[in-house]
Amino acid sequence: MSDTVQNVRVDLAERSYDILIGYQILDRTGPFIAERCKVSDAVVITDANVEEPHAIRVAESLAGESVGVDLVVVEAGELSKSVETASLLWEKLLQLGADRKTVVVAVGGGVVGDLAGFVAATFARGLRFVQVPTTLLAQVDSSVGGKVGVNLPRAKNMVGAFLQPQGVVIDTHTLDTLDEREYRSGLGEVVKYGVILDAELFEYLEAHADGLLGRDADVLRHVVARCCRLKADVVEQDEREETGLRAVLNYGHTFGHALEALTGYGHLLHGEAVGIGMLCASRLAERLGRVDAGFTARQASLLAALGVPTKMPQLDPDQVLRTMMHDKKVQHGRLRFVLPRAMGSVELVGDVDPEDVRAALID
Amino acid sequence: MSDTVQNVRVDLAERSYDILIGYQILDRTGPFIAERCKVSDAVVITDANVEEPHAIRVAESLAGESVGVDLVVVEAGELSKSVETASLLWEKLLQLGADRKTVVVAVGGGVVGDLAGFVAATFARGLRFVQVPTTLLAQVDSSVGGKVGVNLPRAKNMVGAFLQPQGVVIDTHTLDTLDEREYRSGLGEVVKYGVILDAELFEYLEAHADGLLGRDADVLRHVVARCCRLKADVVEQDEREETGLRAVLNYGHTFGHALEALTGYGHLLHGEAVGIGMLCASRLAERLGRVDAGFTARQASLLAALGVPTKMPQLDPDQVLRTMMHDKKVQHGRLRFVLPRAMGSVELVGDVDPEDVRAALID
Repeated sequence: MSDTVQNVRVDLAERSYDILIGYQILDRTGPFIAERCKVSDAVVITDANVEEPHAIRVAESLAGESVGVDLVVVEAGELSKSVETASLLWEKLLQLGADRKTVVVAVGGGVVGDLAGFVAATFARGLRFVQVPTTLLAQVDSSVGGKVGVNLPRAKNMVGAFLQPQGVVIDTHTLDTLDEREYRSGLGEVVKYGVILDAELFEYLEAHADGLLGRDADVLRHVVARCCRLKADVVEQDEREETGLRAVLNYGHTFGHALEALTGYGHLLHGEAVGIGMLCASRLAERLGRVDAGFTARQASLLAALGVPTKMPQLDPDQVLRTMMHDKKVQHGRLRFVLPRAMGSVELVGDVDPEDVRAALID
Repeated sequence: MSDTVQNVRVDLAERSYDILIGYQILDRTGPFIAERCKVSDAVVITDANVEEPHAIRVAESLAGESVGVDLVVVEAGELSKSVETASLLWEKLLQLGADRKTVVVAVGGGVVGDLAGFVAATFARGLRFVQVPTTLLAQVDSSVGGKVGVNLPRAKNMVGAFLQPQGVVIDTHTLDTLDEREYRSGLGEVVKYGVILDAELFEYLEAHADGLLGRDADVLRHVVARCCRLKADVVEQDEREETGLRAVLNYGHTFGHALEALTGYGHLLHGEAVGIGMLCASRLAERLGRVDAGFTARQASLLAALGVPTKMPQLDPDQVLRTMMHDKKVQHGRLRFVLPRAMGSVELVGDVDPEDVRAALID
């Protein structure tokens, strides 16, 4: 255990905010918000798995700052990331008398953060929003960067907005009780940061696989803070995915989203789909002569060492291709991919031949 | 008839855009968009009343610029401004293969503009958007300023976003075939601009009541352009309703929204509710010693001369008060109102005694 707390500052054109990272720091959420926002009431949105003890603790720390708190609990699972659940939450906020002085606090994984963020972005044209991510995936990825949204039945994240939070509180203690599979899925996204931006992080992960699997607090704080910093660097330069720079974060995602959609949401966890998608993208990079087979093998080894699945599910390649064409990142039917050139370095590659994509699906 | 075209430039921090105002200029929409956006495909969203001939004409002018066009028609009426219709449109955009290079073009009244704008703001986290308003109310109000959204069953405009359009094309020829009641309802909102910002405009309206009722093209172009300029001036200074300045546009709206909600959406047209709401607000200003009875009478006379209803519907005052407390503009249960001080000059007045509000409901 470590009581050291790290702060990652996200500097955006309009506004800056802090990401606080530590162990057993949920109690600090109330003061953290009260220092940053003039707030008289808050609505904490969480799911049934996280309510007790995490969301309760966050709510209590807000109450300790004399903030009026309501707790709203949605069903756990990806199916809650829907227009229907958003509708229920809009109605709930109306019923609770939420107004523009209300702060919405999401306590949970990516589903809760994305859903609550979308509801906050759109209720009364925008309430303030704070993230308290409690899964590894949400801590290193979805809680940073301002993307919020819900799924359509056949398209993930298709409805959403950009909403930068007022701040993020990351307590790696919440990972101690995380389901093993979900935890390992998050490591898939952690490996991604090494491949796309930081060869040193990749080596650190290789050297600390045991510490990661054992959820060592110091290793986790270092890794989570590093991932947040890397993501913040990208988001600072391309807040709304306009210049193409932010697209580097999508390494493994065009493949991954298609795999998630075709196996049915929830069958493959997001980080698992991204892990497999990264290997597909790496094989595609091999075919295009950008990296050698050893490069792909090194990623596969690290993912395996971290217990992240690497095996491609059995799917019809044509169906995978068709699904990828529906991805938001596809520009007018032309397939584009984020592909590696070396460890820590990727580029956006346009106009990729569908035949090469098809071949890259085979592991 | 007049072929003069006026341009109102809206200068915002992030981006500027043009509002083109003229008579029989729908054919210019395609070139107008092509000059401003790199666009390969467009989705024109309209309603069954406006499809033929206006939306068809807009679609044809886009096709003339080699832009791929799909036309999507929703049911006419306020009931379409719902989460349910937004869901149908999100699915439709997905089905049409819309992506971030797609431009959404709203052709219709405020319902179509607000709905299509909300769908554009949220699909794939934001598509570009162009407004072609075809009702007077939409031309002078809802198409300018970037507010988009849908209603919840018990709260108007409660779910939405700020989305500044790429441009607006206003053809006052579309007003020639507008239903008389809907046209006059729009005049209610026009009178509002005079009261809140422009005594000269108010006098012009008094002097040209006949021209307005006769839908004279020159009078309309002048009035619509002036209202757009006034609204743009306010929006430029307070794009997201943060400084309180933009609130001046809500003169008559806190009362008006409550009247709309309580009589059932669609029973009172928006401009009618605003007209009656302005008289309530003016009576409230009288009670607070801000204006004299003649000030209210002058507004009532102009509204009557323009055929805008001025009679308060029979409603339970307690219910009206309760409904007003739910309005987005209410801050923590304290009633705030935009109240006149003189012609062309209003202020935001907070902490108003509910008893004064109740008294102002009686005409």
